[in-house]
Amino acid sequence: MLGSGNVASHLSKALIRSGNPVLQVWSKTHQNAIKLALEIGADSIVDLNEISNDVDLVIIAVADDAIAAVANLIQCKDWLVVHTSGSTECAVLNQHPKYGVLYPLQTFSKDVELDFSQVPLCIEANNKETENSLLQLGSTLSTNVRVINSLSRLNLHVAAVFACNFTNYLFSLSQNLLEKNDLSFDIIRPLIFETVKKIESNLPADVQTGPAVRNDRKTMQKHLERLQNEPEWQDLYRLISQSIVKKYQGS
Amino acid sequence: MLGSGNVASHLSKALIRSGNPVLQVWSKTHQNAIKLALEIGADSIVDLNEISNDVDLVIIAVADDAIAAVANLIQCKDWLVVHTSGSTECAVLNQHPKYGVLYPLQTFSKDVELDFSQVPLCIEANNKETENSLLQLGSTLSTNVRVINSLSRLNLHVAAVFACNFTNYLFSLSQNLLEKNDLSFDIIRPLIFETVKKIESNLPADVQTGPAVRNDRKTMQKHLERLQNEPEWQDLYRLISQSIVKKYQGS
Repeated sequence: MLGSGNVASHLSKALIRSGNPVLQVWSKTHQNAIKLALEIGADSIVDLNEISNDVDLVIIAVADDAIAAVANLIQCKDWLVVHTSGSTECAVLNQHPKYGVLYPLQTFSKDVELDFSQVPLCIEANNKETENSLLQLGSTLSTNVRVINSLSRLNLHVAAVFACNFTNYLFSLSQNLLEKNDLSFDIIRPLIFETVKKIESNLPADVQTGPAVRNDRKTMQKHLERLQNEPEWQDLYRLISQSIVKKYQGS
Repeated sequence: MLGSGNVASHLSKALIRSGNPVLQVWSKTHQNAIKLALEIGADSIVDLNEISNDVDLVIIAVADDAIAAVANLIQCKDWLVVHTSGSTECAVLNQHPKYGVLYPLQTFSKDVELDFSQVPLCIEANNKETENSLLQLGSTLSTNVRVINSLSRLNLHVAAVFACNFTNYLFSLSQNLLEKNDLSFDIIRPLIFETVKKIESNLPADVQTGPAVRNDRKTMQKHLERLQNEPEWQDLYRLISQSIVKKYQGS
């Protein structure tokens, strides 16, 4: 396992739980490699040349910007080399004889446990044989494995940023707004849970609510006035509301 | 019950279930009043002058813009008049001897069932006696009732728009992005559920993930390129990402 961040950590643990031993951990910061290695009972290595010949699979779970550089430092041997990134092309690993992608479409935070068997795993590989190896490995990790090419995976990643990262950011703006007004975030949690419960069996476009979808300009104006000390939040409020009005009212 | 929309419909049913009979339903569009009245076993009335003297409480659950007008058409009698709006001042009802607000902080869609006992109810009233009446009624409807003044309620409503309406809109953009690329929304549901599961026991500001929080400019650039045919989505992507970068990287 090359990397020691959120994905590396969750994926290592999931691999071990599903009967796939993790032999070695490497990280740019050796201290982090030691920490993860200790946690999962693996060895930590300082140099990428130390990857053991007993290894079948080398997983590059580092920052997207560093994937190509790390791939270049790994010896080209018979092992399968994969990365775990949503927005990096599979071909960035093409100096290796066997390469591919194992992209878990999920949000990982270090101290938040999660059921890896429900994580959608997106697989890509340089040939059918490698694809089959990855599908087989994937099936031990998750019940939700599919083959997706680099362009689709990138599109999926953009959709994921909207659905997860941006969404969480709106939750945090909501948290900040409440804090500024001495209200606890607790009061809004039931609303958030219901918002998501609705889309368990509906498509979000069919259950949009709020002032913008009704084009209720008076309420939107009142809201913008409440945000007058936060021009950045006002801009966000305005842009998202305009986009909703345009979609639902066509104006 | 004056109104027949999402709030009127869910609130009527919750009232009846908790032992508070709903006698009459009025709506701007009489056909809608008939429909809701039939559903809940109440009478429908055509004119606001027909409100029965047997009524203790008149609930104005109409569009925010129409609350004042409807309140003016109701006779000033001994009944308690409330509205259910997050962003409308309590005082808009002050021609009535007893008035207040019963604001359910929740997102209601007509065909989506929900457990009303978990809905935070925000109460405001023109005096202590009315407040106590509303608190008592509220406690039959929900386990989560609190007194909140008009300004706090408005702030809460703004926070709710960010946390619920805007969030759902981002889900729907994600849905549209997937559809454009022949991918099903199903693939992203586990990610959304996990995003929200994380904030059951964390504050959203503490669990932000994604390219923007890492200031990963290369990935953000790739994502913007994927959105090149959707300038509106590009604008949203850019503005939200900039805001995240600024918050977490201070630049």
